[in-house]
Amino acid sequence: MHPYSPSHLLLPNYVRNNVSALGLCSVMGSLIITVVGSTWMFARTGLSTTDKAIVCWFLISGLLHLLFEGYFLVYHATLLSRIDLPAQLWKEYAISDSRYLSEDTFVLAIERITVFLWGPLCLLAAAATAKSSYNRHALQMLGSTAHIYGCLLYIVTSWEEGHRHSRPEPYYFWLYFVGFNAPWIVIPSILIYRSFAQIAGAMKSAQELEENKASALVIADISLVPECR
Amino acid sequence: MHPYSPSHLLLPNYVRNNVSALGLCSVMGSLIITVVGSTWMFARTGLSTTDKAIVCWFLISGLLHLLFEGYFLVYHATLLSRIDLPAQLWKEYAISDSRYLSEDTFVLAIERITVFLWGPLCLLAAAATAKSSYNRHALQMLGSTAHIYGCLLYIVTSWEEGHRHSRPEPYYFWLYFVGFNAPWIVIPSILIYRSFAQIAGAMKSAQELEENKASALVIADISLVPECR
Repeated sequence: MHPYSPSHLLLPNYVRNNVSALGLCSVMGSLIITVVGSTWMFARTGLSTTDKAIVCWFLISGLLHLLFEGYFLVYHATLLSRIDLPAQLWKEYAISDSRYLSEDTFVLAIERITVFLWGPLCLLAAAATAKSSYNRHALQMLGSTAHIYGCLLYIVTSWEEGHRHSRPEPYYFWLYFVGFNAPWIVIPSILIYRSFAQIAGAMKSAQELEENKASALVIADISLVPECR
Repeated sequence: MHPYSPSHLLLPNYVRNNVSALGLCSVMGSLIITVVGSTWMFARTGLSTTDKAIVCWFLISGLLHLLFEGYFLVYHATLLSRIDLPAQLWKEYAISDSRYLSEDTFVLAIERITVFLWGPLCLLAAAATAKSSYNRHALQMLGSTAHIYGCLLYIVTSWEEGHRHSRPEPYYFWLYFVGFNAPWIVIPSILIYRSFAQIAGAMKSAQELEENKASALVIADISLVPECR
């Protein structure tokens, strides 16, 4: 007997969680609050509130990809019988998507790429934003496109199968499956919109600067003509 | 009897192709050459050779996504029994990946997103490059990240299953499965590298222009002080 969907799914060696859903959510919530608090305390003075929030976003995303999803990649085969804290978190989340317990090919592939590529990339984007690097918008575009595409594929593959791996109760479907994933579509969309404007503005400035320099050269040239001195 | 892998795959209503592989490749090749030729002829004078090549790349990608992959989305359920040209192209390609004939969830999901999002986006990127728009690098980053991620996922999901949907002959595995997909990892990587440099350069120029304007203001201010006139 297990709480996962579909009910005929065979999950040998399944050991029930001994920490409640509320307890697990509190642990995850506390960790996220710690990251946000530390970022706010240690961020360079002069960094705007929006930029601090963006640093937090990429830091939290990067740490989740590397640590939480990294844990899944290492222990996915024995997750069902484990009762350490990250395993209990995964087993609770899997009530909304049992593909995390059934060695689903797509979930393994997407987690592999997320851990190895998007985890480090998010940390780079956080650092670039914190330092107001010239590369911050390019990194932000890259990371945000990856987030949106990955999250869309994750939701559409489940939809193609009629969400049969998800418990139908609104709490699991809407809070866990939709609610815990939607931020990785909504926030990256806003970030891409902002980066588009910033990049286009910079491209315009670059052209203006180029034209200024060209006309300065013309003026310098005229001053060399004796009649114009 | 069918040529697809694994051999025990049930493919009812399968109708064998009546055009040879060489014939099908020639058709696809001619279409691509037509697109490249037209782009080269009708491109704005002053557009560099590299930019013309980038326009071709996004135009070909966008047309493949919208028309060829769009055809798959519409007819995937009856592909096996069809003998029109695009169906024969898909049935030939599927020898290297039978997931295109078996209603595979992942393939359907990724094609759905490719047709609806990345097709139009590639055409936008082609137009932006052709017009040297300020948005061209942002669009190029978006489209190229999507291509790399999609292609990586496509290859890694197949790898997770031991490439059991692909015929093991080098011709099918290396030419069709790897060869026909690798360009969407290699070329986008180069484009992202180029856009990174362009965007960072523009960001630097924007800051320089900002500083120039600020110092011009200071000079203007000093000239207002009577003693400095």
